[in-house]
Amino acid sequence: MSLTESSAVDIAKAASSASRHLATRSEAERNQALTALHDALLANKAAILEANARDLRTAEQSVAGGSLSHSVLKRLDLSRPGKYDDMLHGILSVRSLKDPIGNVTLKTLLDDGLTLEKVACPIGVLLIIFEARPEVIANIAALSIKSGNAAILKGGKESTESFIAIANVISEAIASTRVPQASVQLVKTRAAVSDLLAQDSYIDLVIPRGSNELVRFVKENTKIPVLGHADGLCSAYLHSDADPEIAVKVVVDSKTDYPAACNSLETLIVHQEVLESVLPPVAKALIAKGVSLRCDLSSKTALAEVLNASEAETLQDAHDSDFDTEFLDLTLAVKTTTDLEAAVAHVNAHSSKHTDVIITESAVVANFFMKGVDSAGVFWNASTRFADGMRYGFGTEVGISTNKIHSRGPVGLDGLTIYKYLIRGNGHQAGDYFDGEGGRKYKHENLQQTL
Amino acid sequence: MSLTESSAVDIAKAASSASRHLATRSEAERNQALTALHDALLANKAAILEANARDLRTAEQSVAGGSLSHSVLKRLDLSRPGKYDDMLHGILSVRSLKDPIGNVTLKTLLDDGLTLEKVACPIGVLLIIFEARPEVIANIAALSIKSGNAAILKGGKESTESFIAIANVISEAIASTRVPQASVQLVKTRAAVSDLLAQDSYIDLVIPRGSNELVRFVKENTKIPVLGHADGLCSAYLHSDADPEIAVKVVVDSKTDYPAACNSLETLIVHQEVLESVLPPVAKALIAKGVSLRCDLSSKTALAEVLNASEAETLQDAHDSDFDTEFLDLTLAVKTTTDLEAAVAHVNAHSSKHTDVIITESAVVANFFMKGVDSAGVFWNASTRFADGMRYGFGTEVGISTNKIHSRGPVGLDGLTIYKYLIRGNGHQAGDYFDGEGGRKYKHENLQQTL
Repeated sequence: MSLTESSAVDIAKAASSASRHLATRSEAERNQALTALHDALLANKAAILEANARDLRTAEQSVAGGSLSHSVLKRLDLSRPGKYDDMLHGILSVRSLKDPIGNVTLKTLLDDGLTLEKVACPIGVLLIIFEARPEVIANIAALSIKSGNAAILKGGKESTESFIAIANVISEAIASTRVPQASVQLVKTRAAVSDLLAQDSYIDLVIPRGSNELVRFVKENTKIPVLGHADGLCSAYLHSDADPEIAVKVVVDSKTDYPAACNSLETLIVHQEVLESVLPPVAKALIAKGVSLRCDLSSKTALAEVLNASEAETLQDAHDSDFDTEFLDLTLAVKTTTDLEAAVAHVNAHSSKHTDVIITESAVVANFFMKGVDSAGVFWNASTRFADGMRYGFGTEVGISTNKIHSRGPVGLDGLTIYKYLIRGNGHQAGDYFDGEGGRKYKHENLQQTL
Repeated sequence: MSLTESSAVDIAKAASSASRHLATRSEAERNQALTALHDALLANKAAILEANARDLRTAEQSVAGGSLSHSVLKRLDLSRPGKYDDMLHGILSVRSLKDPIGNVTLKTLLDDGLTLEKVACPIGVLLIIFEARPEVIANIAALSIKSGNAAILKGGKESTESFIAIANVISEAIASTRVPQASVQLVKTRAAVSDLLAQDSYIDLVIPRGSNELVRFVKENTKIPVLGHADGLCSAYLHSDADPEIAVKVVVDSKTDYPAACNSLETLIVHQEVLESVLPPVAKALIAKGVSLRCDLSSKTALAEVLNASEAETLQDAHDSDFDTEFLDLTLAVKTTTDLEAAVAHVNAHSSKHTDVIITESAVVANFFMKGVDSAGVFWNASTRFADGMRYGFGTEVGISTNKIHSRGPVGLDGLTIYKYLIRGNGHQAGDYFDGEGGRKYKHENLQQTL
């Protein structure tokens, strides 16, 4: 691994070649590289934090000059209490995860001496483009090595110094192991993102880690499959039989637990029959938490009658665009609907296929919603905020995907794998199998129970 | 379903909407639609064959005029013995396949009363673009309905009359069932392929069924994921310990069983140590079957010494481009290599990631090859021709994918599915879970053994 000034195509070719060697490395060899990575980052903590401090000083000037937000500055800072240790600990947790490679998910006896296996294997080459957080470098390097994929990492300019320091340490650490050096290549800003995004014959998957704008830019500028989500427009639907207490708990948590998150609530859909029963306590609880409600006419009229004056004052009129807006803030659009089917149709037309929730007491209604809504996560009487790899128990999360193929929702290590088919024979010829006299027949005997 | 003259965006929107309703239909309802499809095609056989005969007459004129190949004409013909019955039988076999929808592959107790499930579901909307074969319409309609996906079918101009006839029958048949009509839309040639390929916000997957040129055109002209393969450049490697008898059987079958197939052999890689031992019997057997060998210098020199004059006469010199050529004919490129690693590198650089084979007596060598070669299928001592959905025991085949994500190799019904995460709770809030006093902890208890 080196912090390289090579051309995008050279970088991509080297990654592709390294990926084929990395795919032959055992779990022990890959885990050993993670240990080396961890130890080297621990040993070089002081130097890396010094480099990070240089990034911070530059960033502080940009913040003072108004060209950088304070939140970016905060994300840059590796010296915040616990952050560096979390980064180190993250490498060890990835190391301790079950090997995602080599799992046999299908084993069939095709005929005597002829077996077919479907085996999990690495995808190949990942391109990871990220913004400020320098600890992502270590995290992604660890995930890539664990899953047997080569990675090309392209960082944001704010973290250049931290990036170089971490890159050099990782580079040396990997050089001492059985993992090929070019398995992790860190690319400085000089090589343009667009040049890398054009390497679709060598790069198999792009993972953008950063703002919605970054993800959208990447999706619009490459033929390589992109794993991630540009938007997180989640909605909750209060059905006509919604339990008011459950509605309050789920909606308040979904909206207010962390409003800037992609899995927080942006639209509340309310069945017209509960505008005056379930909606009011939900609205009161939200307003008490400082949430501004942007209501359609029916919901605003209903609420205006039951809220007190100071609460009612906070109500706003919803515009059509509010139902397509990811507020990422204490604002919630409220939409009235006539029935379940209309609610499902609204969600499918406006949500970003991330996570949507129904509040109902009926299993039949819930199942219809869960089948009909085309999103990665569909929840019944539970907060949208549970849509998260750690909460799902995946141990780590590569990102949350709103794609329709390969991986959806929170993506763990498995999302960085694919499979191949292996056949082992003894000189078997396909021409020997045919209907009629003298033709052999396939046995197609399942040698392993699959799900 | 109707043979529509609507715009591409209207067609795609209608498909998207239908797909959401179709996703809520039970297995029985989907199977019932397949029965209706089958019965209607059986009842209308005469009318459909009449329409097909009109296509054939037009095509015969084009063949006579030199603007159409005889093989296209042959593929058009639905009246060939057994063909129509095979089409009907195909619908019933799809109906009898295990439901690919609803399979739960993960079930986790997150906490008391809070469960997470990962459930197989339809992808959404498929766009299938095919060339001459009219029976593909019935096949694809059946596969789509079975897997709960809406399908937009776009046929080639040679089969227009057959297409219209089949479309009308399918349309009426579906109208009598619980499957939404717009679940299968058949688009006449007037709506341009490129307009449909631009509907990436409504169409989730494109499946081109036809020539390599068609697949290449589709891949280059859409942002929608494409399932298929543009090329099938398969190779076989004879290692230094290859058994000559196995080598002859595997290479001859791979090359000559059906040379025009995507899973037939195009390149033979030979370890230099067996140029004079294993290669000669293989070459003799191939030449006896009419195969022309395009040899690099080392292999030609070695063969020239052991072949008889008439055999040696057939040898040709290989050019670099021969190792990147899918001959689809009785021609085979022969390449000498110095070792296993170089063979793997050659395969990864030149094969189309479809299917590659090693002939060796060593399990260690075979495993290295099988891990190192980045192809959908990697076989040991078995013919490339086994790379096929029916031979794998999948019951049906949507196509063979050389993609690196989602589906690789022969794709069965499962390749038309993805999954969603369902959470069922009782008013659970994510904010209740945190480290420290009063915080709840996730249980992450596996409620189902997964592989």
